[in-house]
Amino acid sequence: MDIQHPYLMFLGDAPDRLAAKTAQGVADWRPEWCLGQFRMEGCNADLQLPDMTMEEAAAAGVKTVIVGVANRGGVISKPWIAVLERALELGMDVAAGLHNRLSDVAVLREVAAHHGRTLFDVRHPQEDYAVASGKKRSGKRVLAVGTDCSVGKMYTTLAMEKEMRTRGWNADFRATGQTGIFIAGSGVSIDAVVADFISGAVEAISPENSDDHWDLIEGQGSLFHASFAGVSLGLLHGAQADALVLCHEPTRPHMRGLPDYKLPSLEDCMSANLAAAHLTNPDARFVGVAVNTFHMSPEDAGSYLQEVESRLGLPAVDPVRNGVGRIVDQLN
Amino acid sequence: MDIQHPYLMFLGDAPDRLAAKTAQGVADWRPEWCLGQFRMEGCNADLQLPDMTMEEAAAAGVKTVIVGVANRGGVISKPWIAVLERALELGMDVAAGLHNRLSDVAVLREVAAHHGRTLFDVRHPQEDYAVASGKKRSGKRVLAVGTDCSVGKMYTTLAMEKEMRTRGWNADFRATGQTGIFIAGSGVSIDAVVADFISGAVEAISPENSDDHWDLIEGQGSLFHASFAGVSLGLLHGAQADALVLCHEPTRPHMRGLPDYKLPSLEDCMSANLAAAHLTNPDARFVGVAVNTFHMSPEDAGSYLQEVESRLGLPAVDPVRNGVGRIVDQLN
Repeated sequence: MDIQHPYLMFLGDAPDRLAAKTAQGVADWRPEWCLGQFRMEGCNADLQLPDMTMEEAAAAGVKTVIVGVANRGGVISKPWIAVLERALELGMDVAAGLHNRLSDVAVLREVAAHHGRTLFDVRHPQEDYAVASGKKRSGKRVLAVGTDCSVGKMYTTLAMEKEMRTRGWNADFRATGQTGIFIAGSGVSIDAVVADFISGAVEAISPENSDDHWDLIEGQGSLFHASFAGVSLGLLHGAQADALVLCHEPTRPHMRGLPDYKLPSLEDCMSANLAAAHLTNPDARFVGVAVNTFHMSPEDAGSYLQEVESRLGLPAVDPVRNGVGRIVDQLN
Repeated sequence: MDIQHPYLMFLGDAPDRLAAKTAQGVADWRPEWCLGQFRMEGCNADLQLPDMTMEEAAAAGVKTVIVGVANRGGVISKPWIAVLERALELGMDVAAGLHNRLSDVAVLREVAAHHGRTLFDVRHPQEDYAVASGKKRSGKRVLAVGTDCSVGKMYTTLAMEKEMRTRGWNADFRATGQTGIFIAGSGVSIDAVVADFISGAVEAISPENSDDHWDLIEGQGSLFHASFAGVSLGLLHGAQADALVLCHEPTRPHMRGLPDYKLPSLEDCMSANLAAAHLTNPDARFVGVAVNTFHMSPEDAGSYLQEVESRLGLPAVDPVRNGVGRIVDQLN
């Protein structure tokens, strides 16, 4: 799966900003790939990109229309289909992160085939992966792990990629979720892979590489999440990470979606992840803590980070407030 | 998924005994359900059951024909299809544990629909499972965990079900693999579930029950298997086991399929499983060790078990040589 850029961001009739958060993530991290946005009647989201018709997008050189928006009621509506059909006719591919598949819409499938275009349904793995071999691969790897879901793993690895590239390092973000896939142009929705192939899929998206190359692998879930820990463990084993970054959100009252489950301590989370990581890479170590302090005052955030730092003996930063330079420093 | 018994065991043209090992497992554990076997030209397997034609099977009251055999080259051959079609016409369901699906064979699908019969492809989950809730369920649960794949988890849990039922306890084996599903008549091939739903599927197959009821949940893989540990962890969390049994095969030179990976020590395996199990059931504990000593002399097996028992302070038995009574005693 390789999604060609530049992109046109399709926002459809997104009722609000939140409905377009995938598109927003792509526009934030790959502004140079996002030539414009396409909005329909009723759209209340705005990426601050030039509004374009499909014809204008094609003329501007757009290669792929990215459906980075949730569809209402899980139905791909007729007005959407007509617009996406036009995109295909004009020679552009279409990529979507919807629960239902573009390729299940007969007319889109037919028009795409007729014009030799590709439909990407990034939530649904489109390759068959091999079972993980567990064999050591060349190149170096970072994996973000977390105390919970949605604590900033994607943001942290993308910020590290950016920091490394700014320093002239050889680094690639490796996506394991839908927004990340649009940002990377490739990857796998790891939670949608058949269970036997979780680790194998991660091996496939972060293959052998040159000795100076860093993969920044997007983490998912948490070893302490009672619903999804299997995904996180398979990801950890497949990644064979040399360096782990612990991601955390300190104000969360309980594990996401599980009111009866408290978050683990940072220490417990680190020791469980390290023990598991050592199975496939005995040299794995933590290099930093990335804390999402969005809900804290600057003062509280500062003293929290300082306390974590002295307690764990690792750089503790909020990637948004402080950047990730001090974590990347650990990898020299 | 509820597969109706009694069964006719379809052996097709199984080239040898090993090709029919699934069928053999069903005949061993559910002899009262297996009324006969169906063998074709070239079949070299024999379950020591009465040979029956499809007509004889239907007349004898068979409800389901079990395809408990590997098909050559991954193709469901024409002679097989003709026979299975006849079974459907005679009013029997057909259940298979093949990699490819019966329901992908158009004629079988049509004949089944026409006669109101069901095709079960037990390797392929046929239900949509919910994400695990992590909520404590009533009833009690045993889970078999292992140092590796294929070390006797299914055998151990089936033997415990048998022992408990002999003692008049309220107990049900819960299947997580294809042979187990035929033996239980229901269950889920847990390694074929989409990754996000591993724990949820296990919650679904071992639901709330009366306080005196024991689920004996078939384990899969190992937390120490670099290819499949995610499946094992999701299974462990979904099971919310009260009691764990450690399964082991002491003569194995390395992890199955992974020449570079040694087996963990029993102690490391127990502590990793306990730590993870405590997330969804803080009272989880080990109650015994089930060792497959098939490749050892009776003397070596005896002294090995004695050594393990005194080292770990838990009953250590070979379920085949010694039975599992001493493990079940721990659950009183």
